[in-house]
Amino acid sequence: LLGSSMAWALKSRGLCPQILAWSRSEPTRKKCAQSEWCGAVFDNIKDAVLDADLIVLSSTPSSIPLVAQEAAKFAKPGAIATDLGSVKTEIAKKCAEIFKGSGADFVPSHPMAGSDKSGPENADKNLFENACVFVCAPESSQPAQKIADMWRALGAHAHFLTPERHDEIAACISHIPQAAATSLALFAASKGADIFKNFAGNGFKDTTRIAKSSPEMWVDIFAQNSENVANGLREFIKIADEFARAVENKDSEKIRELMSKAKAARLDMEKQYE
Amino acid sequence: LLGSSMAWALKSRGLCPQILAWSRSEPTRKKCAQSEWCGAVFDNIKDAVLDADLIVLSSTPSSIPLVAQEAAKFAKPGAIATDLGSVKTEIAKKCAEIFKGSGADFVPSHPMAGSDKSGPENADKNLFENACVFVCAPESSQPAQKIADMWRALGAHAHFLTPERHDEIAACISHIPQAAATSLALFAASKGADIFKNFAGNGFKDTTRIAKSSPEMWVDIFAQNSENVANGLREFIKIADEFARAVENKDSEKIRELMSKAKAARLDMEKQYE
Repeated sequence: LLGSSMAWALKSRGLCPQILAWSRSEPTRKKCAQSEWCGAVFDNIKDAVLDADLIVLSSTPSSIPLVAQEAAKFAKPGAIATDLGSVKTEIAKKCAEIFKGSGADFVPSHPMAGSDKSGPENADKNLFENACVFVCAPESSQPAQKIADMWRALGAHAHFLTPERHDEIAACISHIPQAAATSLALFAASKGADIFKNFAGNGFKDTTRIAKSSPEMWVDIFAQNSENVANGLREFIKIADEFARAVENKDSEKIRELMSKAKAARLDMEKQYE
Repeated sequence: LLGSSMAWALKSRGLCPQILAWSRSEPTRKKCAQSEWCGAVFDNIKDAVLDADLIVLSSTPSSIPLVAQEAAKFAKPGAIATDLGSVKTEIAKKCAEIFKGSGADFVPSHPMAGSDKSGPENADKNLFENACVFVCAPESSQPAQKIADMWRALGAHAHFLTPERHDEIAACISHIPQAAATSLALFAASKGADIFKNFAGNGFKDTTRIAKSSPEMWVDIFAQNSENVANGLREFIKIADEFARAVENKDSEKIRELMSKAKAARLDMEKQYE
């Protein structure tokens, strides 16, 4: 989804004369070949990167360094590579090592955009409009500036920060909410799907929407950002437990205080966007 | 919001020639008076219910029996009263007692519809289209059938069940998701609103949308459904803790299993609606 959306976004804005694609999966290669942004599709990495000025690695976090290994062998001097992985510390470290001496530069990036859907068939050429994109390299570096400029040209807001700080922030704003939504859907499953199927309203549906996201992608994200996520999730659990105690005690003052604080924080947060 | 939406829904469908309103709050009375569904507004309950065939009590759960007390004094013989409260056991018990011997019948109902907004200015005449409405009285009773028919005429699906079963189900599909979303917004607040304001995407926003709901209303709901909510919330916490342990151990198999189960359950649940 992310790679195809980016390809389409670049092509449709006239920012890229030709886009060459590679995928390890034949069905995905076929879908790419049918997409309007696609110049050619290859079943080997070499042919896709050989002449590329920009190399985009869009895959699950654990396989990005494996793809990078092959891409770095054939990248032309002066090319810039980036990735779209949701966890950055491990990818940044491994890929810096991999691209060292290749003549090409590697700049890790992560767009805060996506969907609970996946695959080229769900691509959206405007996916990055108004999205926040993290660029995990020093702002002073030339290749990092070029990658940031590219994201801005797709309508995104670029922010520079270290891979470590990125992973702390991503845990809070994305990985822990995902774990909470998944846990709530599991709670619902334990109660029997029928009462939810027949009776649940929009509140439940919105709160658990992202529980539909791809398990394969999230397995990698949780494993690579394990410490930040496990610690944060336990902080969330402590708060939920405080809430349960207030409800158990019918402590109206405490419930009102917690609900009012949550409402104010949530309203404050959305000022940026809505 | 619910009372005004219902009034407007009835009026706009030609199901009610005249709608008389009462509210304890002057600003709310003014907003009602300016609404197209409104025949007249009173500052006392007596004048609003005296000639009514249908009496709708729309208020926070703890104040519904207080309003019912006054309404029952003046209800005409043969009138039917209902309420829109989100918790039913206590309301059903108290209001049955209150209306006994009044000549009017009381049928508790609860539409699974709403918004994080409140007040007559946010009313929606189609709010109940396709919504599920619980009617907490025996299906064999004549007044319960009339109330169910009214909801069906507004486009809703009516389900008969006991007040006790209603409160168990409402805890699962609505009250515990509310507590989870509120807890997640509180977690975000504890991390500093700035990172969320600047960086959070749609996943976080959807998952916490209902944290913006009215604290005043929810204080009552949580207090009246205390046991179901506290117990269920603790089951949810156990599941989240199991998830945290899998993440901490980088147990990819377990994470994949939990995410896949959540995804399948969530997809199954929405077949009904989407």
